[in-house]
Amino acid sequence: MAKLSGFPEYSPRERIVEQAVLDHLRATFELHGFASVETRAVEPLEVLLRKGEIDKEVYGVRRLAGDGDADLALHFDLTVPFARYVTENAGTLDFPFRRYQIQKVWRGERPQQGRFREFTQADIDIVGRDTLPFHADVEVAQVMAEALGGLMGLVGGAGATLQISNRKVLEGFYLGLGLAEPAAVMQVVDKLDKVSADKVRSMLADIGVGEEQASAVLALAEIVTTDTSFVQRVEALGVEHELLAEGLGELAEVVGSLATPAGVTVTADLRIARGLDYYTGTVFETRLAGYESLGSICSGGRYEKLASDNRSTYPGVGISLGVSRFLAALLADGLSATRSVPSAVLVAVTDEQHRSEAAEAARALRARGIASEIAPSAAKFGKQIRHAERRGIPFVWFPGDPHTVKDIRSGEQVEADPSAWTPPAGDLRPQVLATPSSSTPSEEKQ
Amino acid sequence: MAKLSGFPEYSPRERIVEQAVLDHLRATFELHGFASVETRAVEPLEVLLRKGEIDKEVYGVRRLAGDGDADLALHFDLTVPFARYVTENAGTLDFPFRRYQIQKVWRGERPQQGRFREFTQADIDIVGRDTLPFHADVEVAQVMAEALGGLMGLVGGAGATLQISNRKVLEGFYLGLGLAEPAAVMQVVDKLDKVSADKVRSMLADIGVGEEQASAVLALAEIVTTDTSFVQRVEALGVEHELLAEGLGELAEVVGSLATPAGVTVTADLRIARGLDYYTGTVFETRLAGYESLGSICSGGRYEKLASDNRSTYPGVGISLGVSRFLAALLADGLSATRSVPSAVLVAVTDEQHRSEAAEAARALRARGIASEIAPSAAKFGKQIRHAERRGIPFVWFPGDPHTVKDIRSGEQVEADPSAWTPPAGDLRPQVLATPSSSTPSEEKQ
Repeated sequence: MAKLSGFPEYSPRERIVEQAVLDHLRATFELHGFASVETRAVEPLEVLLRKGEIDKEVYGVRRLAGDGDADLALHFDLTVPFARYVTENAGTLDFPFRRYQIQKVWRGERPQQGRFREFTQADIDIVGRDTLPFHADVEVAQVMAEALGGLMGLVGGAGATLQISNRKVLEGFYLGLGLAEPAAVMQVVDKLDKVSADKVRSMLADIGVGEEQASAVLALAEIVTTDTSFVQRVEALGVEHELLAEGLGELAEVVGSLATPAGVTVTADLRIARGLDYYTGTVFETRLAGYESLGSICSGGRYEKLASDNRSTYPGVGISLGVSRFLAALLADGLSATRSVPSAVLVAVTDEQHRSEAAEAARALRARGIASEIAPSAAKFGKQIRHAERRGIPFVWFPGDPHTVKDIRSGEQVEADPSAWTPPAGDLRPQVLATPSSSTPSEEKQ
Repeated sequence: MAKLSGFPEYSPRERIVEQAVLDHLRATFELHGFASVETRAVEPLEVLLRKGEIDKEVYGVRRLAGDGDADLALHFDLTVPFARYVTENAGTLDFPFRRYQIQKVWRGERPQQGRFREFTQADIDIVGRDTLPFHADVEVAQVMAEALGGLMGLVGGAGATLQISNRKVLEGFYLGLGLAEPAAVMQVVDKLDKVSADKVRSMLADIGVGEEQASAVLALAEIVTTDTSFVQRVEALGVEHELLAEGLGELAEVVGSLATPAGVTVTADLRIARGLDYYTGTVFETRLAGYESLGSICSGGRYEKLASDNRSTYPGVGISLGVSRFLAALLADGLSATRSVPSAVLVAVTDEQHRSEAAEAARALRARGIASEIAPSAAKFGKQIRHAERRGIPFVWFPGDPHTVKDIRSGEQVEADPSAWTPPAGDLRPQVLATPSSSTPSEEKQ
């Protein structure tokens, strides 16, 4: 049977890499005190379609035997379900509420490189009731920067660039230029990473932007700095507006106060507009060096109204990492793990009558946290060693009097006590092996 | 909006309990060298319906914009997708293949206590190519017994009973009695935990089982032992058959060689038949003391043909824990966690101008693995302390010269260095708080 296109499944070795990535993300988010939330996979169809995003190609869900059930569908992101969760539980949640959510989502898009129909996202959001201080924007940027930094260390990535902008800067600048419909301008500017500046210039003309105004719009979009010097460069363009000043202040606060970890560059990048119209201030995108064709792997921003109910509105700021998208690309380039099983040790079996001795040795090893499995058959030792080799298990244990343990990579075999021996720390758990090519894009980018 | 019946969602505090349970299961399975597999949520409808189990109330899945797509449906267990995964990847997997799989499954059953439409299962299976040694049956029983033992310790459960039987014992015994259709007899015996022995006797009569034979059938089903003494009790019934002898040998091997952890009782229980007809030898069920109405929370067995392709058959043995079922019951009885967030420390903010000092203290704590969050506003300290209290965060940190840290439970406040102070080990992470009632069912059962 052919595999289902768009629904990737990992081999056990690839899954170990994915687990390491997800474990790292969870650990980072929890270190910052974010609480885990999981929402159900389905939402009422009306909840998903409320924002008019039928272009997400929603998957409907219906009991084969079901009549009169509510129309359900698989969620296509984690933001819409989270907004629903917040209003549904507003009476018992403590605000500001800081949560992370790592789950699969489904979109019926045409499968292509880096685009799947089932994929995993890792989101963090901070949501307030009625108000949310601006420093929440700084915080989600800081947490995701640390998450990305750790990821680069783990997978040997050549570096991630967290690109930060602010819709108030763009909107205020366009208003200051006398452009009456800044949202339309923003949607055109958002296409700058797909089409040429000349094409953007002609699209701007199509919506009534004059030539001089278009030049200013494009000049703004060219401003990229790794510090707060973008403020002077914007001011040098000579446009003034209250909203622009407010946005510049916010963006300078985020970019100026982030402590960026190794492997991550933070930029104020005024080309970043985010097409989605619910963002109202800070916006984020992220590019991975050497994998620019993936587009943004981690995006988000501030929304003044994540959700609302009869009594309150819930402003929020969040950022979402597309785990499957970047992981699939790195796995395709050779990202791997040292072994395909958790076991650090294979305990050999001399003959079936002595299987219980092997079980006892394994029990003594496990009691001290050393993952161990027992050979499935009392085959010749050479065959049992090959069993370990195929799985990447580094040690084979031979029960006996005395017990011995063999590092099958070096061939070294020593006497050992199953209740005292420990493998080197690096062999205790499977390790992620960075992509062989990871240094190449790094050099290209520098 | 009303919550969706059958699709439970946890509060952040309940989710911490669920994470602790899932972490424990994963750690146990990995300690025994089982590799993690995740399969996609959907399968082609034909794969799910192949076994004729439409009574599982399958959820169909279809793109709203989709025409001509394959008919897909959400998986209703993890065994059918795993069997498909094994044949699809048989060329690259190493056999015997030992995997665990912890994922959500969906069934459109009528929601009721302990029955959900979306729920989490934790499965382990060992699958061989063409052959699988019998000791694999012992191994999955041992691993799941350890998983259950740890769970009992974690949630304060009154104890789990792993009930083991063997279809060969039942089938051989019935054949030895001269009953030509043992499968039909087994299906009737399987109802013994739902209907009375008299009712079962009359149902046996309906399918042509004589009175004396029925008495023998019921006598066999009454045999429950915690050791291998069931063998003599069966032999005392005076029935002989080759298959019976083989089954008794197998069952004695499993029951006799398990090392049972605290909190778990293992029984040979000849009432256990498992209705499903693909089991061919060892079968497992599990009851939770005080929660007998949930039925079996953990079931499985040996199947000579988990899957097959053109070249091979794949025998397997596995066991599946219904995580949501028992967790929901315990949460309803008050199982909880010490806090609703991962944070061990809330860092107070003196005034907004000094927020960066709070961030620095938090960074120093996190650098040593201490989950910390920063107060969202520079409110009066009393209000900041209540912010911590509501979330169950045990410590509030006051940046300054010197820094101080307050245990808000005792009120004790001491000078401390953010780059050296550590909380007591029990406060570092949220802890599971056992159900208040957990001792009651325990006493009832003893």
